[in-house]
Amino acid sequence: MNQVIEAILNRRSVRSFTEKRISREELELITTAGKYGPSAVNRQGFQQTVIQNKELIAALAAAIPQYFESIKGEYSFYGADTLILLSDEADKPSGCQDCSCAAENIFLAAHSLGIGSVWINQFKNTCDKPDIRPLLTKAGVPENHTVWMGAALGYPAETPAPKEKTTQVKWCL
Amino acid sequence: MNQVIEAILNRRSVRSFTEKRISREELELITTAGKYGPSAVNRQGFQQTVIQNKELIAALAAAIPQYFESIKGEYSFYGADTLILLSDEADKPSGCQDCSCAAENIFLAAHSLGIGSVWINQFKNTCDKPDIRPLLTKAGVPENHTVWMGAALGYPAETPAPKEKTTQVKWCL
Repeated sequence: MNQVIEAILNRRSVRSFTEKRISREELELITTAGKYGPSAVNRQGFQQTVIQNKELIAALAAAIPQYFESIKGEYSFYGADTLILLSDEADKPSGCQDCSCAAENIFLAAHSLGIGSVWINQFKNTCDKPDIRPLLTKAGVPENHTVWMGAALGYPAETPAPKEKTTQVKWCL
Repeated sequence: MNQVIEAILNRRSVRSFTEKRISREELELITTAGKYGPSAVNRQGFQQTVIQNKELIAALAAAIPQYFESIKGEYSFYGADTLILLSDEADKPSGCQDCSCAAENIFLAAHSLGIGSVWINQFKNTCDKPDIRPLLTKAGVPENHTVWMGAALGYPAETPAPKEKTTQVKWCL
């Protein structure tokens, strides 16, 4: 098995991080990987917003739980060092697909550098809420963008066990 | 730069293929990579349908153009040897995201094996059309699934030039 497939199969969602800072150089590599996802009709309309500002991450984390019954108590994006938000103009039909592929590239590139990551799904339905949008604007997310997802990144403080993959494959040969 | 990031940066959409068959072993690796994408709340509800049956690929290709003014003349999924369709239950909120990440894994795994691929975007809006759905059913796609996208795969008969990547990265450090 080659290193690419090995990385795909060994990547896990990491939900516990050390305090070690991710370097600018590493984030440049990771966001470059994000840029190289496929994009419908090569439109390349999406944006990656890299947030390492602790106050802003804390403010976003504090604003999120009110919209989710499933989040009990304090929230901190699992203590991640960095958030990368993936956004695109709200009315673009392939925004979700383009941002998702970019996110997967981010997860894989981070994993290849020994950096853990996890999908943050709370922005898609809250990015236009009055407690959230001003923080996104402060971070640099364009006003007319939907934030399709975020990636929380940091050096792993856990080694998640493999999960059985049960998705179906049907063969028509 | 490590091999994972190198693969992400060097993958291109390939739209011209040789007639060389992709082996079952290679398709097992590629679909395993597809399985290992992240899945919202680890639901893993999506399906990969691998179609190598030439008659069925030809029938799908013949049924598609009527729905797209942009497709002039004959259509053949660029002469691809294999189609992998990514589908999920139509009403699942993260079907698009989960299938997109699986698709990116498929593209990267294929690339790492020397196999070319390209996103096929024509199924999302046509999968329930009367000329398309029976063919999907024949292939094994569940009736209640939306086909979010397809991947057309084959050995490359072209080496696409690099494209400039212009998507924005904003930094909030």
